[in-house]
Amino acid sequence: MLIPTRTPFLPATAAFRSGNDSPRAFLERCIQLIEAHEPEVRAFVVTNLAAARAAADRSTERWRAGNPLSPIDGMPIGIKDTMDTFDMPTAQGSPLFAGHQTRTDAAPVIALREAGAVIVGKTVTTEFAALAPGPTRNPWDLSRTPGGSSSGSAAAVGAGMLTAATGSQVIGSILRPSSYCGCYGFKPSYGGINRGGCNDAMSQSCVGVLAATLAEAWVVARTISARAGGDPGYPGVSGQMSMPEAEPPHRVALLQTEGWARASESAKTGLKTVARKLAASGIEVIARSGSPAIERLESDLADAAELSLNIGNFERRWPLNTYAQHLDREKLSKHMQGVLAKAEKVTQEEYASWLATRAQIRARYNEVRESCDVCMTLSAPGAAPVGLATGDYALVVPGSLLGVPTVSLPVLQSEGLPLGLQVLGFQNADVDLFAAAAAIEAMVLGFTQK
Amino acid sequence: MLIPTRTPFLPATAAFRSGNDSPRAFLERCIQLIEAHEPEVRAFVVTNLAAARAAADRSTERWRAGNPLSPIDGMPIGIKDTMDTFDMPTAQGSPLFAGHQTRTDAAPVIALREAGAVIVGKTVTTEFAALAPGPTRNPWDLSRTPGGSSSGSAAAVGAGMLTAATGSQVIGSILRPSSYCGCYGFKPSYGGINRGGCNDAMSQSCVGVLAATLAEAWVVARTISARAGGDPGYPGVSGQMSMPEAEPPHRVALLQTEGWARASESAKTGLKTVARKLAASGIEVIARSGSPAIERLESDLADAAELSLNIGNFERRWPLNTYAQHLDREKLSKHMQGVLAKAEKVTQEEYASWLATRAQIRARYNEVRESCDVCMTLSAPGAAPVGLATGDYALVVPGSLLGVPTVSLPVLQSEGLPLGLQVLGFQNADVDLFAAAAAIEAMVLGFTQK
Repeated sequence: MLIPTRTPFLPATAAFRSGNDSPRAFLERCIQLIEAHEPEVRAFVVTNLAAARAAADRSTERWRAGNPLSPIDGMPIGIKDTMDTFDMPTAQGSPLFAGHQTRTDAAPVIALREAGAVIVGKTVTTEFAALAPGPTRNPWDLSRTPGGSSSGSAAAVGAGMLTAATGSQVIGSILRPSSYCGCYGFKPSYGGINRGGCNDAMSQSCVGVLAATLAEAWVVARTISARAGGDPGYPGVSGQMSMPEAEPPHRVALLQTEGWARASESAKTGLKTVARKLAASGIEVIARSGSPAIERLESDLADAAELSLNIGNFERRWPLNTYAQHLDREKLSKHMQGVLAKAEKVTQEEYASWLATRAQIRARYNEVRESCDVCMTLSAPGAAPVGLATGDYALVVPGSLLGVPTVSLPVLQSEGLPLGLQVLGFQNADVDLFAAAAAIEAMVLGFTQK
Repeated sequence: MLIPTRTPFLPATAAFRSGNDSPRAFLERCIQLIEAHEPEVRAFVVTNLAAARAAADRSTERWRAGNPLSPIDGMPIGIKDTMDTFDMPTAQGSPLFAGHQTRTDAAPVIALREAGAVIVGKTVTTEFAALAPGPTRNPWDLSRTPGGSSSGSAAAVGAGMLTAATGSQVIGSILRPSSYCGCYGFKPSYGGINRGGCNDAMSQSCVGVLAATLAEAWVVARTISARAGGDPGYPGVSGQMSMPEAEPPHRVALLQTEGWARASESAKTGLKTVARKLAASGIEVIARSGSPAIERLESDLADAAELSLNIGNFERRWPLNTYAQHLDREKLSKHMQGVLAKAEKVTQEEYASWLATRAQIRARYNEVRESCDVCMTLSAPGAAPVGLATGDYALVVPGSLLGVPTVSLPVLQSEGLPLGLQVLGFQNADVDLFAAAAAIEAMVLGFTQK
């Protein structure tokens, strides 16, 4: 088996202009990696290589003519199989929708096409982006999960089959698989990317990007938001189109959250090493023991998972009720049948009280801004676990609950396998998060990935 | 032609228990009115009378057994044709979706079924609930528009063919047709009723109810919200399940807004008469001339229509772009093609600035709470205009922009035709709005409609 290596695209574009390389040749290199990995990794539900090659050829012409549609014109991208595509079915990881062909594109998908991106295929998701896993395996170790729910996106990008892929996260569905598969993951501020046609209206859920480099996570997300906007009523990911310059944060809050208790020794050591490097570079690293504000935040986040699951379960009542009554209840997983049963017992008043608690925690997190520029923790307690169950989300659920932008940087290891370093920013300050994350990455690695 | 009369349902339910009447017999009376009016009024895209009769028979058994599923068990209801129904197509008023059959129900629809309501048919909407009218005509005068976009819902309820129907409003699409067709209209607080499956994610849009009585507008909306919740992230219409008791407001702010300049003399006289009756009942009626807070509100709302249209046009970019590219651009009306062209010229930054302006206006409206309990104005400048163009929305757009609950009471007249009295409340205080509106209605009519 090949050692997985990511496939950055932006550095190749200079050669697209000169004619020494082309989007079509770039795509063929990705297809070779797909042919090498895909039989065992199973990242894709379906590919459309003919359409991808035709799109790459059109992109090749644009670059040669000096008229690319965007910086990602020609980039091979995968689409999480929860998002509608007019030319490929959208199964949402459920037998209820196997082969379901929509006539239209989701908002992020048509935005990517308008930017010239090469849509290669639909990537495997868990059932309705929740718990029940698909067939995808971790490209670093086939006996392990890629994580979920953006399983295929993470596996394909981590193994270099694609430069980037779309994902979505309501609990931990972008950052967790990014950590397990060794790619960059970006969950924007809530509302950051228009979810039209993504079969997802949940109040913590957010479309984001998994990518070969931090710069590409930014540029892909920003290229989409410029064309699709954010969710209706939200400004969407904003700011400069190109990757923000690295800007070292002055103060970084080191979070533990509930998942810390389960973190492996190597994971903990990794995070401590990062903290030491940051401190050595003159950054003030603040921990719960040294800051009442961070201690209060840790206490606020202690039940982040339970609160998020409660809110999410209620928000799945519809459409699960019409699926169960009008499609086929037996084709819902036992887990989903259980979610529906739970949701039907929740009262509006309970749900409203959970929303109020979440709003309060968000308001208090916003006050932490006075104590630090970004927060930092692990993206997972350790390497991907053995088996297909999608793993532990406790360390990434806080970013979802808070609705703040988060990135996972694949700069740590555990058991010789990838582990992400998570950086959390503040609502609608996605640019600042990337500037800080780039600086942190450079300090950890000794150089910046472009 | 019959004089339109509404068909209240709640007063009949006592006889359902005793066996002197039944939901099936009630439905048959509605069907007689459908047969009388529908050939000329054309309120329905499609009906499913066989399914309605079967549902009414099941309801009859429940009432006889003393086990109705809800107070609206057996109520004949229409569904705006933007909302998915598993057993009838959903065309959204567009040839692009003519005959489009979904396999699932929208969230409000399945909630109504769970409450035992009898779904009679799909009611005509303008194209994608915007401007281009359908074939529906006003039951009071066939040469006139029923208003839009909930055209068929208003015509059917105003003519008594149904007790209630669902609607949605992003500009004036519930209150305007309610005013023109002489029925009650209720647009809840933003987020009040779950829009899942309603093909609408716009940031001012709200599902609501058109009904034969004020009590039924409340009970239908509340019955839905109890089963479907509000939009994800919103508490939804909350409070008691039954119609709130009338509670006279202490202070009522009399608004004019931009539409006042076009109001007919009889409409203005009507509103002044209402104001006089309220004052005679000891209510303090506040006008812009006597209150700096109201004067500032009037000034804030002067551009409500333009701001709302700007926001809405941008939010229609998707899905109009995929409709134009992947379905058939020529099957979009010229108006919709123009909306898409406009939307594609808007930058994220412009959109963000409109959102900021709206948020500021909303925050200031909330301060008006200190000056009054509700606001009051006309629902339209006069009677429905001649022709099928859907009429003037200037007087109802403020409630949409503000995201506050509004009702239209069919207690005024102009040109011998219906005209609504509009009452506006405050965010998530829908119960208080109904209590005040019931008291105002009783003062105007000298008694309370049940």
